Amino acid sequence: MTIGSELAGVRRFPADELVTLADQALTALGAPADIAGQVARSLVLSNLVGHDSHGVIRLAQYAPWIADGQIRPAAPAVITRRERAAAVVDGGWGFGQPAAQLATGLAVELAGEHSVAAVTIRDCNHVGRLGEYVAELARSGLMGLAFCNSGAVVAPFGGTGRALGTNPFAWGAPGAAYGPLVLDFSTAGVAEGKLRVAGAEGRDVPAGLIVDSRGQPTTHPADFFAGGALLPFGGHKGSGMSIIIELLGGLLTGMGTAPTPDYAGGNGTVLLAMSIGAFTDEDSYRDEAMRFCAQLVAAGAGPSGGHVLLPGELESRTRQQRLNQGIPVGEGVLDLIYTITDPLGVPRPEPAR
Amino acid sequence: MTIGSELAGVRRFPADELVTLADQALTALGAPADIAGQVARSLVLSNLVGHDSHGVIRLAQYAPWIADGQIRPAAPAVITRRERAAAVVDGGWGFGQPAAQLATGLAVELAGEHSVAAVTIRDCNHVGRLGEYVAELARSGLMGLAFCNSGAVVAPFGGTGRALGTNPFAWGAPGAAYGPLVLDFSTAGVAEGKLRVAGAEGRDVPAGLIVDSRGQPTTHPADFFAGGALLPFGGHKGSGMSIIIELLGGLLTGMGTAPTPDYAGGNGTVLLAMSIGAFTDEDSYRDEAMRFCAQLVAAGAGPSGGHVLLPGELESRTRQQRLNQGIPVGEGVLDLIYTITDPLGVPRPEPAR
Repeated sequence: MTIGSELAGVRRFPADELVTLADQALTALGAPADIAGQVARSLVLSNLVGHDSHGVIRLAQYAPWIADGQIRPAAPAVITRRERAAAVVDGGWGFGQPAAQLATGLAVELAGEHSVAAVTIRDCNHVGRLGEYVAELARSGLMGLAFCNSGAVVAPFGGTGRALGTNPFAWGAPGAAYGPLVLDFSTAGVAEGKLRVAGAEGRDVPAGLIVDSRGQPTTHPADFFAGGALLPFGGHKGSGMSIIIELLGGLLTGMGTAPTPDYAGGNGTVLLAMSIGAFTDEDSYRDEAMRFCAQLVAAGAGPSGGHVLLPGELESRTRQQRLNQGIPVGEGVLDLIYTITDPLGVPRPEPAR
Repeated sequence: MTIGSELAGVRRFPADELVTLADQALTALGAPADIAGQVARSLVLSNLVGHDSHGVIRLAQYAPWIADGQIRPAAPAVITRRERAAAVVDGGWGFGQPAAQLATGLAVELAGEHSVAAVTIRDCNHVGRLGEYVAELARSGLMGLAFCNSGAVVAPFGGTGRALGTNPFAWGAPGAAYGPLVLDFSTAGVAEGKLRVAGAEGRDVPAGLIVDSRGQPTTHPADFFAGGALLPFGGHKGSGMSIIIELLGGLLTGMGTAPTPDYAGGNGTVLLAMSIGAFTDEDSYRDEAMRFCAQLVAAGAGPSGGHVLLPGELESRTRQQRLNQGIPVGEGVLDLIYTITDPLGVPRPEPAR
C-alpha cells in the first residue's frame, strides 16, 4: 500500500502543505473551491493513515481523466432519489469523493430517521478510500458498511480472464475508547501499485497472486501488465465476495458491471448504516466493545509473542506519527506529481523541518 | 463440507425420509409440531444442497444440548422490538432455525415498508446454514446479507489463542434466470468437521489452517483438538471480517462476543435486506444480472480451460442431483444419528430405491 515509502529518496511534508498543493492543482484543473478542498483533504487523509496508493499520487491519474472527459471537475453530486430509508446520489461524473461525502452525510441522516439506511452512488468516479466514509459513519455512532466496483482487472476463482474489479469492502463500527474500528480491503490478493513497484525493481511476487494472459499462474509482474489478471484474495471465498460486490456496485447503482461493454468506469458505490441504539442499549455496546477489543489484544500476547492489530489500529498510529513527523513521499512520486502541478503554476510544497 | 460422503459405506435416502426422521426425533425431544417441522426441513435442506455438516448429523448435537438446557425445544421465537426499519427477534434459547425464519420474513416485510431493513436475533441457538435465509431474501426480490458469531475457536491474525467464532458471512441476490446467487462461507480457513475427519483417518492438513495450543503453526489435526485454534481464511483480511462479524453478531444483538466470559453460546445473528426497486429499475437489474453472469461464466472458458462457478451454482446442482438420486449419508453418520433416534423409538428411514 505504501508505494511512496518503498522508493528510495523519501522526503517528508506537513499534511497542510500537501493539502494546499492538491487544492491549488485541482482548482487549476477546473474544480470549484469547495470540490477542490474536499478532494484535496480526502487524498491527504489517505496519505496520513498510510495508504499512499490513495493519496496525492492520484493527482497524476485525475489530471488525464479530466483532460479526456472521464472526470467533469466542476460537476456537483446531487441527491436524485429518496425513498424512505433508501436514497440515490448521482455523482454527475464529477469527482467521487464529494459524492461519497454527500452520500455518507445522507446515510447518517436517514439512519437517524429510519434506524437503518442505504445510499447508492451512480455516475461516480474514483471515490478514494472507502475507509474514510465508514469511519465517518462510526464516528456518528453507526455501524457502517461500504462496497464499490471498479474496472475489470481480477479473474474470478476458476477463471482465466479479467472479469471483476478490485472491488473493495469496508466496515466501520464504534470502538468506544479504541476509536472507530475500520476495516477496508480490496478483494484482490495484491494491489496493482505493488506489482508496478515490484516490476520496476525487477522482483518477482509470491505465487498465487496473478495469472498471465493465458490464465496460467505466474510470479512475473510483467505478465500481469501484458494482459494477465490479478487473482482474488482468499480463493473462492474472496472471489465470491468480489462477485457480490460487483452486483451491488454495478447493478444496484445501475452503473453496470465491470466486464460488460456499457461499463463506463468509475466506482458504483453502496453505503449501509445501522443505528446501534435501534437494536441494543448503547452503553452496553460500549462496555462490551471495550471488553472484546481487550480480549483480542490479549489473544496476541501468547507464548509465541504474536501481536493482534485491531481494525484501523495501524492507520490510527500512522496518522499520529505522520501528523508529528510529516508525510513521507518518494522522489519518484514527487516527480510524477510535479509533472502535473509545475505546468499549472502550482508552487511546490515546503518539506517538514 | 460433505462429511458424510467422505466416509466409506454411504447409503442414499429420499429427502422426505430424512425430514420424517428428524421431525419425529425433534418431536420426541420436546419440540412442538411446527418447530420440529421447521428445524427438520432446514436440516435436510442443508443436506440437499450438499452442506452435510449442517444437515441431519446435527441431531447428534442438538439432543445433548436439549438435555443440558442449552436448547429449550418448545420455546418460540418472538419479535421484541420494531423501530422503523429495524427489528429485534428474541430466540428465547429455542431452536435457532425458526428464529431465523421469523427474522427473514420480518426483514422481507420491513424492506417492503422502508426500502431497507435490518433484523437482529438474540438469545438464539444454532441457526443452521445462513445461506438458507439470504436465498429466501433473494427469492423475495431483495438483496440480503447475513452474519452471525459463534463459539470462540479461531485465532485472530497475529494471535495465538481462540478469540473468534467461525463467524460466517452470507449474501443473496436475485440472479434472474440463473436463480438466487447465494454466497455463504465461514471466515475460518477450515471447518472443524473436516479436521475431525482428517484426524480420524490419520491424515495431516495443509499448512496455514491451524495452530497448536502454544500458537505454533501445525498440520496435525490432533494439535487443534488439544487446545489449538483454527486460523481465519485469507490472512488479515479474513481475520478483519471475522472481528467485524463478532461485533455485529455479538454486540449489535446484545448476546456478547465469543471470547468474553458472559458469552452463553449460540449465534448472534444480523440480517440486512435491500429492496432493489428502491434504488434502480428492476427490469434493468434483471437484464444486467443476466449479462454479468454470462460474462463470468465466459471468464472460465479461456485457453486454460478453467471453470467459474456462480455463487450458489454448486448447491443448486447438488440439490437437483440429490432430489433425483437421494441424499448420501455415511454409515458412521447414520450410526451417530441412530444412537439418538433409536432410543426415542423413531423408525429408521427407508433408503432410496
